Amino acid sequence: MNKICIIGVGLIGGSFALGLKSTKKIEIVGFGRSEVHLQQAQKLGVIDAYSLDIVEALSGVELVLIATPVNSFKNILEMIKPHIGEQTIVSDVGSTKGSVIATAKEVFGAMPENFVPAHPIAGKEKSGVDAADGVLFNNKLVILTPTKNTNAHSVTQVRELWETLGAKVEVMDSKTHDDLLAMTSHLPHMLAFSLMDYLTGNGKSVLDYAAGGFKDFSRIASSDASMWRDICFNNSDDIVKHIKGFQGSLDKIVDFIEKGKTQEIERLFIDAKTARDNWLKDK
Amino acid sequence: MNKICIIGVGLIGGSFALGLKSTKKIEIVGFGRSEVHLQQAQKLGVIDAYSLDIVEALSGVELVLIATPVNSFKNILEMIKPHIGEQTIVSDVGSTKGSVIATAKEVFGAMPENFVPAHPIAGKEKSGVDAADGVLFNNKLVILTPTKNTNAHSVTQVRELWETLGAKVEVMDSKTHDDLLAMTSHLPHMLAFSLMDYLTGNGKSVLDYAAGGFKDFSRIASSDASMWRDICFNNSDDIVKHIKGFQGSLDKIVDFIEKGKTQEIERLFIDAKTARDNWLKDK
Repeated sequence: MNKICIIGVGLIGGSFALGLKSTKKIEIVGFGRSEVHLQQAQKLGVIDAYSLDIVEALSGVELVLIATPVNSFKNILEMIKPHIGEQTIVSDVGSTKGSVIATAKEVFGAMPENFVPAHPIAGKEKSGVDAADGVLFNNKLVILTPTKNTNAHSVTQVRELWETLGAKVEVMDSKTHDDLLAMTSHLPHMLAFSLMDYLTGNGKSVLDYAAGGFKDFSRIASSDASMWRDICFNNSDDIVKHIKGFQGSLDKIVDFIEKGKTQEIERLFIDAKTARDNWLKDK
Repeated sequence: MNKICIIGVGLIGGSFALGLKSTKKIEIVGFGRSEVHLQQAQKLGVIDAYSLDIVEALSGVELVLIATPVNSFKNILEMIKPHIGEQTIVSDVGSTKGSVIATAKEVFGAMPENFVPAHPIAGKEKSGVDAADGVLFNNKLVILTPTKNTNAHSVTQVRELWETLGAKVEVMDSKTHDDLLAMTSHLPHMLAFSLMDYLTGNGKSVLDYAAGGFKDFSRIASSDASMWRDICFNNSDDIVKHIKGFQGSLDKIVDFIEKGKTQEIERLFIDAKTARDNWLKDK
């Protein structure tokens, strides 16, 4: 692959670009709404060139990576649709995959053969191209969710790019992805936001009594609100399902406490600790 | 104060001792069940001497600090009861205060005048005397929960010791303490344990898809299971009340998602983020 275009050169798009440029000879063109940001990306060596004109930005590229917030995908797909060749691979980095596929079907009539939906499970607290990091995806998981329409060649090409960055690539259907991420990412975020909502609802000074453990637990409540609003509505069924499922686990703890089931609660805590400690060993 | 006895020379008791020894001339005697641990504490310079005989350990001390798990308090209070003078101050570091006061009343018939229940809001992931740290309480909050019986002199003495260690001391009644800590500490722990329980209940491999944010969020699920079992049953009413209250906040998010209330959910996330960011500024 000789030339790619990245739409949205922020943390993820920028880190993808930096990683590729450090390992292979490839021309990377940036596209975005803000010339200031694109200039900064070029200055940092993240992209070779940029254009505010989509026709120019897509000229001669073999792959377009959409790395903007998921809710902008419809506009972006409509914008690039007239200007991409049949061979141009399209991919993205959105954190919900069913909604991306639905949007692509809506814009293109059917899922394009060369569209490979992708989600790198990696991030940072900081955002923007200044935080871009060429090794961000090293040893991180990237999930590809091709549909029945997607051709194998495109999947292989996208897989190889991510593997170049040191990522571990896994392929699954979008339903499985959205269900898994609802559990491991969306649910914890809802719990963190909810906890802040609940505590502040109980009085301004409550948080004065929070200690060290609270700092880590609540960190994800400092995530970007508009991004998480969009995730909520792009994966609403799975998120609601798992919030309700989680409430069943909370009900179980309440039941153990109310009935004085000391052994059962200790067992649950031991198992939770063991699961977490074992998970951590692999990280 | 010239001589104190610490019962249970672990992380908290040991850090208290180290902090005091670094700032004033004071003799500290350790008491515990394990001679190996006490020898180690002495070797580390945490205590000046130790005894496995409670009469010897309490001889001539002006204050006894109980720094063992809360569920051992009844045995310990019964053990020390015949051997402490009327002037000897008793204090503790237990993380639930209503239960400590109830136990003291049970053992002594009424709350002793010289008993000052205390709870330093500080800790570490590690436990044991090897992790003891003389500056652990610096700038940390210590809550004292004297009862109507407690004499002012004892409260002042205990307050001054903690202030010597750089702690900020606040006095409140035990009900307020237990309610606040149920919100800021016990509830988050229940959520972290529950989340691990829920996720592992959905299949062994679910956690493979958890990323960086999950690591911080789940850290407190690696806390000691038997300690948290005891906290659950020593503050059961408040914990159950706040789990149920928190479920109301979760229900609100579900309602917002199901009804497509995008603005309301974004508002909630913004407020959560703001509250967390503001809280962090003071830390």
